[in-house]
Order: sequence, then structure tokens, then C-alpha cells
Amino acid sequence: MVINAMEKIMQDLLDEYKSRLQLSCTCEQCLEDIMALTLNKTKPRYVTNVDKIMYIKADYVDKQQMTSLLVTLAECAKIVSDRPLCENSVKKVKGNEMSYM
Amino acid sequence: MVINAMEKIMQDLLDEYKSRLQLSCTCEQCLEDIMALTLNKTKPRYVTNVDKIMYIKADYVDKQQMTSLLVTLAECAKIVSDRPLCENSVKKVKGNEMSYM
Repeated sequence: MVINAMEKIMQDLLDEYKSRLQLSCTCEQCLEDIMALTLNKTKPRYVTNVDKIMYIKADYVDKQQMTSLLVTLAECAKIVSDRPLCENSVKKVKGNEMSYM
Repeated sequence: MVINAMEKIMQDLLDEYKSRLQLSCTCEQCLEDIMALTLNKTKPRYVTNVDKIMYIKADYVDKQQMTSLLVTLAECAKIVSDRPLCENSVKKVKGNEMSYM
């Protein structure tokens, strides 16, 4: 099994900063859209063993690197918040296209 | 759940070309090492739904794009085959470091 360590690192970051990202919707779909967008903009760090994720995470203890991840996360949170595609929101916004990609 | 469509696309490619990649070892660990290395060198394409993977895969029907993925796969297969880190191989090769990263 291979796993991208950035998935766990970004999920932890989203959980930590969720309340401060001024999200217009916090439903599961919007949070997943934020995660997918963020991970698409982040260099992957695949490992072959979940135990190795912590070594990758240790690289980001460096504050500047973690800040850079947080900036990406905040940018993607804004994209999704400006144009949420979940069922709660999509009916309200006319001409909303069904993808961020 | 978010998933990197490239994981499935690369796995399919590895399954298809495995016998032609001149691998020195085809144990599970070596195959996973090849996958992890390859995915680290490939732009991620995260989607929020497994059904969307086929849309991403359709992008690679273009032969040049698929060839470019195959070149990356072959390069990574060579790196792992030249210096396998599995239990079968690691004892034979003196000074083998325990990582490709």
C-alpha cells in the first residue's frame, strides 16, 4: 500500500485551522473539495508504510514550510468558499459550473 | 474521501508493463517502491469520488501523455531494480542505503 503523506498532513492542518478559514460551508463535500484542490497544488510525498508519515511530517516542523502549506490551504479554502458546489449551495448560485478543475 | 486518480492509472500501467520493465525483483515491497517513486514524480490529480477517476484517465488516452507516464514509470523501475531495498536483496548489496528519497 502506498500513501501520500501530504494527505494526512493537510487533513491535520485543515482540522486545526478550519474555524479560522472563514468557510462559507463546512459540509463534508466542501471540505473534501478543499482537500482535493489543496493536494493537487502540493508536491506529493508518497511512502510505502504509514509509519513513515511522521518522518515526512517532521520535515514540515520548519515553520516556513508549514506556512507555505497553510497559504495553499487558505487559497483553496477561498476558491471553494467563493463558489461552493455542494447541494446546499449549488441551487443558490446561478451558472455555477460543477468543477474547480 | 479524496483519492489521487494517478494511483489507479499508474497501478494499471505497472500491471500492464511489469513483465517488460526488466525488474530485478518483483516482490510486493519492490513494486510498492516503484509506485511510490513514480507517484512522487507525477503531478497529482485528486478527485473526491472514485467514479471521477475514469474522467482523469480519459485525459491520458492521448498517446503522448500516456507515454510520458510510462517513461517516468520505467525510470523509477530502473532506480529500484538497480538498488532493490527488499529483504531478498538488501543483504546481498553492501552499503545499500535504506531509502530512494
